[in-house]
Amino acid sequence: MTSSSASHSSPVLATAARAREAAALLAPLPRTDRDGALLAIADALVARTDEIVAANAEDTAKARAVGTSESLVDRLTLTPERIAAIADDVRHVVTLPDPVGEVVRGSTLPNGLDLRQIRVPLGVVGIIYEARPNVTVDAAALCLKSGNAVLLRGSSSAYASNTALVMVLRDAVAGAGLPADVVQLVPGEGRDAVRELMRARGLVDVLIPRGGASLIRTVVEESTVPVIETGTGNCHVYVDEAADIDMALSILVNSKAQRPSVCNAAETVLVHAGIADAFLPRALEALTQAGVIVHGDAAWQQAGPGLVAPATDEDWATEYLSYDIAAVVVPDLDAAVAHIRRWTSGHTEAIVTGSQAAARRFTQLVDSTTVAVNASTRFTDGGQFGFGAEIGISTQKLHARGPMGLPELTSTKYIVTGDGHTR
Amino acid sequence: MTSSSASHSSPVLATAARAREAAALLAPLPRTDRDGALLAIADALVARTDEIVAANAEDTAKARAVGTSESLVDRLTLTPERIAAIADDVRHVVTLPDPVGEVVRGSTLPNGLDLRQIRVPLGVVGIIYEARPNVTVDAAALCLKSGNAVLLRGSSSAYASNTALVMVLRDAVAGAGLPADVVQLVPGEGRDAVRELMRARGLVDVLIPRGGASLIRTVVEESTVPVIETGTGNCHVYVDEAADIDMALSILVNSKAQRPSVCNAAETVLVHAGIADAFLPRALEALTQAGVIVHGDAAWQQAGPGLVAPATDEDWATEYLSYDIAAVVVPDLDAAVAHIRRWTSGHTEAIVTGSQAAARRFTQLVDSTTVAVNASTRFTDGGQFGFGAEIGISTQKLHARGPMGLPELTSTKYIVTGDGHTR
Repeated sequence: MTSSSASHSSPVLATAARAREAAALLAPLPRTDRDGALLAIADALVARTDEIVAANAEDTAKARAVGTSESLVDRLTLTPERIAAIADDVRHVVTLPDPVGEVVRGSTLPNGLDLRQIRVPLGVVGIIYEARPNVTVDAAALCLKSGNAVLLRGSSSAYASNTALVMVLRDAVAGAGLPADVVQLVPGEGRDAVRELMRARGLVDVLIPRGGASLIRTVVEESTVPVIETGTGNCHVYVDEAADIDMALSILVNSKAQRPSVCNAAETVLVHAGIADAFLPRALEALTQAGVIVHGDAAWQQAGPGLVAPATDEDWATEYLSYDIAAVVVPDLDAAVAHIRRWTSGHTEAIVTGSQAAARRFTQLVDSTTVAVNASTRFTDGGQFGFGAEIGISTQKLHARGPMGLPELTSTKYIVTGDGHTR
Repeated sequence: MTSSSASHSSPVLATAARAREAAALLAPLPRTDRDGALLAIADALVARTDEIVAANAEDTAKARAVGTSESLVDRLTLTPERIAAIADDVRHVVTLPDPVGEVVRGSTLPNGLDLRQIRVPLGVVGIIYEARPNVTVDAAALCLKSGNAVLLRGSSSAYASNTALVMVLRDAVAGAGLPADVVQLVPGEGRDAVRELMRARGLVDVLIPRGGASLIRTVVEESTVPVIETGTGNCHVYVDEAADIDMALSILVNSKAQRPSVCNAAETVLVHAGIADAFLPRALEALTQAGVIVHGDAAWQQAGPGLVAPATDEDWATEYLSYDIAAVVVPDLDAAVAHIRRWTSGHTEAIVTGSQAAARRFTQLVDSTTVAVNASTRFTDGGQFGFGAEIGISTQKLHARGPMGLPELTSTKYIVTGDGHTR
């Protein structure tokens, strides 16, 4: 299964082969060694702040030169304070429970064989991301904690920052006595490097694309390396006939407007016809007050003449990630479920209801990573779920579904122990 | 996510869309309904034995007409006794624990939200197989038990048998009040139908190829539907310096020769140099007696002049599935591990040793689905592991690794319950 790095002429495959060799050395090391490297990383990030800030200044200057908006430049910017916060996040990862070695299942078989299924690192994890440079450190820390080597592929707009950060990480890892190649940047710019990474089956164990829908679709379509699909969130809030109206308003506004740019924000509200007369006018008032534009069906348009833009199928399908929401009145709960099943990306759907039967039916019929009952969609998050960290939110069904913490960065193996047992 | 079957002009995609709709109806049904359908299937298989045997006779006649070997024709043949045994297997599946609804993780979060992660069916499972027609019933029974719709794609040599079996299954399912479309044969013959199935992302949740290495490689390379890779087994037995020689002989012969045609049979034996002088002559005697041809390195050739064929890199890489074994002497345990890591398919590796330190190091360093200590490689099997059933043996790291039982045919979802909680 492993291949020597010498045999790979492509820089990307050679990088992956080195990661594979480093992963084999890393996997059997005990927690203290991995935690030691993480603490060394945290210290080095603080000690080498000037170097990181200087590299980051190149990226931000370039971004401004090509007319990037100030809000995007701000997301790209690393300050000494932000670097200190990133280092603190790494120290927090040190405190999390070690997933490696956990006995998932164990028994003595009828013939006396002892069977144990234990958690082991996945091996080499590739992360393709478009986000802020802090993801570089976060992802590396979570992979290292779970015993994995990591291949990092950030956006070209953060290239200098990521290069500086990875140099700091590698030096710290090597200083702590671990192979530096457990953390590597994927070499080269442009799409070709990503394409090679996606074909590195046998060298890379899993690819996790984090970012826009088009990046994720490309990776899912083209990769022969197994992929965990993350993050697309066309989330729904269903206000049942038996909802408490004040609770529904509060959950709706929180789900939509508390932070509209994230994947667990709501994009469509569905309202049971039996409560529409009472709910729609108050919802329109609350949403408008929160700065939200409603794209509604005929019932919503009638409830707010001039306030509601007409909704089309495109609205049901759209993840706005903005102060916009699609809105529809449905005859009953089953119609709400049918609408959700047709249009959802499978991330998070909420129901607001006082009816136990409605809550039960909704949670049974809705097939998404998370179903929230009388709670905001915004809770679907590794931090909120108490996982202590999150490498992404899987919207696929295989391997991991929903917020992914450290255990989701592991596989398992079986150990069978006997005294000369044969069949 | 779902699409109506009407919108799919291709027969394969229309079949998958119908399976998706049926899966949505099946998923929330309680165990009693699924078990009732399984019992109806078992009864129907017995009641309609004549019909099945008649269809099977078409397949066997065709096979003989094209000169298929009698051993392969035997594998294809269904007799009343074999059909009764298949029906009994279905009744056994009824008795297995229901994976659906199991609470995998649960806690009350600091803010009072109740968090539950529960097992749910995967949805639509596609199985592509080359094996005997009994797989048609086995796979359907396991998928139905775990709440999944199944798309079956058997070998063209069993087409008439599979068509008859699926008709019996569908009638029984419908008679039990469940949608017949939870069990379907993929329409059409030839590779095109398989290719369409592999591109049915969004309609099919997972593809499980069972069969030869070339089939599995094709599906892994070309499928955009998530795949679980199964079954390739280049398994190793390492005889450590501290091995009991009688135990090592017994494990070696059992691993290789008890049933050489299966994936958990051993294909290479590695022997520590420190025990080679004592072990090799006795191993050659025992293997030869069992009808096994040894393909050895220089040390093995020297130990058995004229008895041992010279081994090349191709032998280390080969899954013989026959009465052949590759054989090598290694300087120490770490060299054995390095050989295994280089050549293994990651299925099962055994160590025979009296040394606790050696056993511990081998289990830590070997990265395969199963590591056997003082036990035959032949135990890697869902039945042997006590899972009660097996849909295949995954040799990949994502989602499932090793023998896959009913839980491996499920995903999970989170249920978050509050009293109007917002962030």
